[in-house]
Amino acid sequence: MNFINTIEKKRDKERLSKEEIRDFINRYVAGEIPDYQVSALLMAIYLNGCDDEETYELTMAMAESGDIMDLSGIPGIKVDKHSTGGVGDKVTLIAAPVAAACGVPTAKMSGRGLGFTGGTIDKLESIPGFSVSLEEDEFISQVKKTGYALIGQTKDLTPADKLLYALRDVTGTVGCIPLIASSIMSKKIAAGSDAIVLEVTHGTGAFMKDERSACELARIMIDIGRRAGLYMRAVITDMNEPLGHAIGNSLEVIEAIEALKGNAVPDVLEVMEVIIPEMIMAGGKAGSKEEAWKLAVDQVSSGRALEVFKKMIEAQHGNPCVADDYSLFPQAAVKTEVYAERNGYLSVKDCAGIGECVKVLGGGRITKEQMIDLSVGLDMKVKNGERVSKGDCLCEIYSRNNNEAEAARKQYLNSVEITDEEPVKNRLIYTLDD
Amino acid sequence: MNFINTIEKKRDKERLSKEEIRDFINRYVAGEIPDYQVSALLMAIYLNGCDDEETYELTMAMAESGDIMDLSGIPGIKVDKHSTGGVGDKVTLIAAPVAAACGVPTAKMSGRGLGFTGGTIDKLESIPGFSVSLEEDEFISQVKKTGYALIGQTKDLTPADKLLYALRDVTGTVGCIPLIASSIMSKKIAAGSDAIVLEVTHGTGAFMKDERSACELARIMIDIGRRAGLYMRAVITDMNEPLGHAIGNSLEVIEAIEALKGNAVPDVLEVMEVIIPEMIMAGGKAGSKEEAWKLAVDQVSSGRALEVFKKMIEAQHGNPCVADDYSLFPQAAVKTEVYAERNGYLSVKDCAGIGECVKVLGGGRITKEQMIDLSVGLDMKVKNGERVSKGDCLCEIYSRNNNEAEAARKQYLNSVEITDEEPVKNRLIYTLDD
Repeated sequence: MNFINTIEKKRDKERLSKEEIRDFINRYVAGEIPDYQVSALLMAIYLNGCDDEETYELTMAMAESGDIMDLSGIPGIKVDKHSTGGVGDKVTLIAAPVAAACGVPTAKMSGRGLGFTGGTIDKLESIPGFSVSLEEDEFISQVKKTGYALIGQTKDLTPADKLLYALRDVTGTVGCIPLIASSIMSKKIAAGSDAIVLEVTHGTGAFMKDERSACELARIMIDIGRRAGLYMRAVITDMNEPLGHAIGNSLEVIEAIEALKGNAVPDVLEVMEVIIPEMIMAGGKAGSKEEAWKLAVDQVSSGRALEVFKKMIEAQHGNPCVADDYSLFPQAAVKTEVYAERNGYLSVKDCAGIGECVKVLGGGRITKEQMIDLSVGLDMKVKNGERVSKGDCLCEIYSRNNNEAEAARKQYLNSVEITDEEPVKNRLIYTLDD
Repeated sequence: MNFINTIEKKRDKERLSKEEIRDFINRYVAGEIPDYQVSALLMAIYLNGCDDEETYELTMAMAESGDIMDLSGIPGIKVDKHSTGGVGDKVTLIAAPVAAACGVPTAKMSGRGLGFTGGTIDKLESIPGFSVSLEEDEFISQVKKTGYALIGQTKDLTPADKLLYALRDVTGTVGCIPLIASSIMSKKIAAGSDAIVLEVTHGTGAFMKDERSACELARIMIDIGRRAGLYMRAVITDMNEPLGHAIGNSLEVIEAIEALKGNAVPDVLEVMEVIIPEMIMAGGKAGSKEEAWKLAVDQVSSGRALEVFKKMIEAQHGNPCVADDYSLFPQAAVKTEVYAERNGYLSVKDCAGIGECVKVLGGGRITKEQMIDLSVGLDMKVKNGERVSKGDCLCEIYSRNNNEAEAARKQYLNSVEITDEEPVKNRLIYTLDD
């Protein structure tokens, strides 16, 4: 098969066949097609799109380019949960142990953060001793024992996605729905769960900028998953302001632990109330949202959800005492407060801009290889739309030194404003029904 | 400057600035931008286009990426002539010596053939001893002395075009008007003439498939040239059938020599009648087409045009006696004839398909590095639209062996048909007036 013909077909808005897509992925992974040809195809896909059939075939070719995790040894319906990323989004850290406590096995692989979004794997690494790398058999036996494991992607999973993602990152072809959907879903399919609950974010702090694009991305991912025989659900969430109060790795884990203790802040609780029941229902442990949420609340109030989280930490060589003593987390050297300069309403202009504060503080990645500081971040005392008076503390900055704190303060103040009028609040959650 | 931003701008249909285009070309030639980023930009340009300003800036950046030929030492207005290529197009071989004989210095650089089109440089190399490589000073002194030199591109001319052309060739981004126009015009501008007469071809035997695209390509090339301060003219010619009777390197040189002797076949003569006067007027040697053509005819009938051609051959170490004794050209081992299988009109279906016959015979290139046989080709005895009877000779095939002759015969017969109805003849020439 001549790969130039494949490029030309997509350039001319023709459909690619399953055979052409397989040939592309297999030969690219084998090193037989050069990056410069693939990037031309990626740009043609970016500009001319892919239909659902092509996107599904691309996803399956990518999923099958490496190992497929076999979770059949774990009894029950294995449920995975995925977020398309956002600022302060720690829902995975909360939802998975609650679902596991309800008897839904969650064998989850997560990614690292890049740019303004954090990554679940980085957050967990702020727990002293915690290991995100387990062998496949350790991973499976931990899920069997504790109902829950959360690791980084194994190196043999979806090599095609690793290559394509790296190339998209440097060729202006990241923000393309069929490519985003196939990247996410290839990893989810290869990770071997039976059901997937998607949290698809949109807004200034997400990759999808509006609800419509988020719905379209969710629709395509659901379509791919169902063609692959998975049970699929999706929840659309607003990311025009950070979720919860904490941003930064250890600070978000602490906020998640508080939620597992029954102290979730309102917006985090609101997302939990839709995501967790979806996971429990997907796992066949409840027949309605109300029943599922009641079950979840029981697991939190009884302390069993926190217990599952601590067992997972222990099984993965971390110190579970962090859940009771937050001083065991890495500590930032300098804490400074940012004050309101006038009376009015706090209005978040740019959620990604607030996410960038963590990068400025050394807690977020600019390149994939970068080491990051897990102690730094922001504790936002005031949320979007809340009334403030001049001199009120808007947020607390956790930093390594005064210079970085000052840079983060400026970055924070550039991302918000204090307005006379109350800002319009977007609806936080939109559930896709079908 | 971050090149990813440049890719993203073009991807999002924004204009690129002069600085962004310069940065792209300069850093690509310096090896600082990888092919995989450039091919993504090329595909974005292919699909989203470039406006006239961007195309001009791209052309100038490419022209200035290498040496610019300084022809100021040659007195008079230096006129270049360029064809966008076609099957059997030997007009450059005829027009340049005629114009030179009229006192218009032509210092011309040409390319090699690729695919179904022949290249002037390959054709000239069929003359025993002929050298297409001269040093810049030899080239200029030859034009001063004989009024005419025709060489291959020097290696230091437009390195950006060489890199981009090679990349476009393998990434499905060849057939894009702004990229074609900037590729041609960067070489023409770097070659240093004062005026350029363009022959822009269209049809099944050209890169532009219809007259409208050819007019658009011509319009853009004229715009680029005029912005660069050159005198520009363009003639649009039909390439839905090969031009003249001969296709193949030495066979086309012989047909050109015949034209210089006053024996041009009708369609070749028709193109000469517009191209040659344009060159003579561009060179300031005549005030009207009629006056210019009269001058040209005088140079042919007096033998001075052929004399200039022979002097050029001699100056470039070729044997000028070929003009009087065609047996000095490389000779094909086997000559076979193709006969009409029924009565009717000869109808050319696919002009490029006839061009491919030369490739089948080993006289055309599939890859740039390939050695080709300069003796092989076709002598078409019957032109499109002519009446034939069963058993008439349609064309004579010059080949190395019977197998290749048979393959070329099949290829020829697949490209033509004999029809009951007289085929529609396209107008051969369309002059752009402004």
